[in-house]
Amino acid sequence: MDNINIKYLARELNLSISTVSRALRDSYEISPGTKRKVFALAKKLNYQPNPNASGLREQKTKTIAVVIPEVSNNFFALAINGIEKAAQEKNYHVLIYLTHENHEREVSYFRTLSSGRVDGVLLSMSSEGIDHQHLVDFNKKGIPLVFFDRVCTSLKNIKVTTNDFESSHLATRHLINSGCKKIAYLMISKNISIGQIRMDGYIDGLSGSSEAGQKPLIVECSNNYDENYEIIKELVVNEKPDGVFASVENLAIVFYNVCRELSLTIPKDIKIISFSNLHTASLLNPSLTTITQPAFLIGETAANMLFKKICKKEDDELSETVILKSALIKGDSTG
Amino acid sequence: MDNINIKYLARELNLSISTVSRALRDSYEISPGTKRKVFALAKKLNYQPNPNASGLREQKTKTIAVVIPEVSNNFFALAINGIEKAAQEKNYHVLIYLTHENHEREVSYFRTLSSGRVDGVLLSMSSEGIDHQHLVDFNKKGIPLVFFDRVCTSLKNIKVTTNDFESSHLATRHLINSGCKKIAYLMISKNISIGQIRMDGYIDGLSGSSEAGQKPLIVECSNNYDENYEIIKELVVNEKPDGVFASVENLAIVFYNVCRELSLTIPKDIKIISFSNLHTASLLNPSLTTITQPAFLIGETAANMLFKKICKKEDDELSETVILKSALIKGDSTG
Repeated sequence: MDNINIKYLARELNLSISTVSRALRDSYEISPGTKRKVFALAKKLNYQPNPNASGLREQKTKTIAVVIPEVSNNFFALAINGIEKAAQEKNYHVLIYLTHENHEREVSYFRTLSSGRVDGVLLSMSSEGIDHQHLVDFNKKGIPLVFFDRVCTSLKNIKVTTNDFESSHLATRHLINSGCKKIAYLMISKNISIGQIRMDGYIDGLSGSSEAGQKPLIVECSNNYDENYEIIKELVVNEKPDGVFASVENLAIVFYNVCRELSLTIPKDIKIISFSNLHTASLLNPSLTTITQPAFLIGETAANMLFKKICKKEDDELSETVILKSALIKGDSTG
Repeated sequence: MDNINIKYLARELNLSISTVSRALRDSYEISPGTKRKVFALAKKLNYQPNPNASGLREQKTKTIAVVIPEVSNNFFALAINGIEKAAQEKNYHVLIYLTHENHEREVSYFRTLSSGRVDGVLLSMSSEGIDHQHLVDFNKKGIPLVFFDRVCTSLKNIKVTTNDFESSHLATRHLINSGCKKIAYLMISKNISIGQIRMDGYIDGLSGSSEAGQKPLIVECSNNYDENYEIIKELVVNEKPDGVFASVENLAIVFYNVCRELSLTIPKDIKIISFSNLHTASLLNPSLTTITQPAFLIGETAANMLFKKICKKEDDELSETVILKSALIKGDSTG
C-alpha cells in the first residue's frame, strides 16, 4: 500500500479529513474512541505523515545541521559520533554539511539553512573565513547556533571547546623539557579561533622557559597535502628545528613522511608532538606524543546545549562557553 | 529584516500574492517586467523560500540521505567526500545517518525516509541485518535507492562495490607467497555481502595453493573493540597462525595492539594484510600491507548513479552493478 495519506484514512474510516488530521495530532477536540480508531488504522497501514506538510504545521523539522570542515579527520569523526548519540536520544535527524575549509561554501550553506530547513545548527568554522557576516545574519533569524572546537570569538553564541591555550602551553613545555632548543609551530590558519589560541599558548610556553628564551618559529600551513609537504620540508631543511609542535594531526602525518624522505630519525634528530585523535597514534613508527581532545564529549555536549536552546521558547540570552580538557598522551616521538 | 515572505513582497510591490509566487517560479503567465521587479526586491531583501512550502509544490527536496555504519573509519570518511563532491555539483544537500551497525536503527531510518524527506538514498548496510523487509518496503515507495560497498545481493537496486572476491583471493595468495603456512581470516559478519564474499575469496585463495592445502581458519569478530581484542588474542595464543588477513582495518589495528601485548614481532613471528584506507598505513610500526579500495570513487560513482536514477521520471529498470578495482599496497607487515 503506497502513499497512505490522511485523505485515504478519512475515506476508510468514514470520517472527515480534518477529524483524522486533528486525531493524529492528538487534539483535545477529538474523542478518545475516534482517536483510537484512527491510530489503529494508521498503524496497520504504516501511515507516515508528509514531513513537508507537518513541518508547516508544527514549525519543527526535528533535524539539526552539523557544518564542519571534513570527516576524514579523527577529531570530527568522533565528534559526529557524540552528536549522533545526543540526537538519537532526542529523536532528531542529523544533517552533515562539509565545507572543505571553503568560506564561500560555508556562507552558501548558511543561506540555505536560514530558510528553516533545520531547528538548529552546530558549527565548527572553516579555516578560510575572515568575514562573519553570514553568521551575524543567521543569528537574526532566531535559529539556534552553537559553536564547537573552531568558534567565532566575536559572537555571543554558546561555544564548546577544549582548553587550547593551556594544552598548547603544556605541549611546548613538554618539548622544552625533552631537550628541544628550537621549536617550530605548524599552524593551520590564523583565521580560525584555534589557530590563534593554540599559537598564543605556544608563544607563552616558549617565553616562560627558564632556558635562554627561544624565539617563536611559526609556519603557516595550508589545507593541501602537497603544499604542506613542501612547506614542512623547507622548514626542516632550512631552519633545522629540533622540535615541532603540530596544531592538527594531518600536519603531523605530513611531518612523518617528510622525515622519512630526509632520513631523519624521530625522536633522535627531531621531536614532534601534535593535537590528535588518531586511533593509530600509539602504533606509528615511532608512536606519536599527542594532545588528545575529548572529541566525542565535545560533540555530545555541543549537541545537548543546542537542544536546550531549541527547547527554550523565549529568545533568552543563554550564552556560555564550555571548556572540556584535553590530555597529553606520551609516545616515543618526544624521546 | 526577518521572515521575508511572499506576502511581504506582494505588499511592498503592490502586487497579488499569487502574482509574486508565480513570478518567483518564473511562470510564463507573468510579464518579464514584473518578474524583474519581483526578483530585484527578493534579492535586495534576501528572500528565502520556505522549504516546506516549496517542497510541497515541487515534490523535490534537493536532499539525499547516506545511511552508513560509521564515520570513524577511513573508508566511509573518504566515500562521504566522494558523495559530497557529486552532490555539490548537483546542488544537493547530503543528510548522513549512522547506524552503528544496528539493524533496528537502520529499519527506523528507512521508515522515516520513506515519508518523502529525501529524493534518494545511498546505503551501505549495517552488519547486524539479516532481514531485508524494510528495503523491500522502501523500494515500493518509488524513492531511488543505491547500494555501495555493503550491498543487498537479493535486491535488484544499483550497486557500487569493489572486486572483493578477487582482492581477497589476491591477499591470501600474497600471504602464501610470503611463506605463511597457517592463515587466519578475521571477518566482521556473515550477514553482510562483503563479509561473505571476502571470506569466499580467502577460501578460494587457500584452495588454489600449490602448498599442502591449508584448512580455512575463520574467526568471526564483533563491532566492539574490547570483544575483538579478546577474540584475536585467543586466536593468536591458541591457534598460533603465522599469517592473518583482516577483512576491515579496525581489526588490523586491534591485531597490532594484541601483538604488542604478546611481544610478537610483525612480520617475523606473524604476518598481516588488511582491507584498509588508513592514511597512516605506511607509517605504522611496521607499515601495513593493505588492500586499498577506491573509497572516494566508490562514493562519487554511487552518488552519480543515484542522481541519474532520480532524474529519470519513469520507473525504469535501471539495475546494474559497478565494480571498481582495489589495489594491493605492499608494506613491511608481510615481510
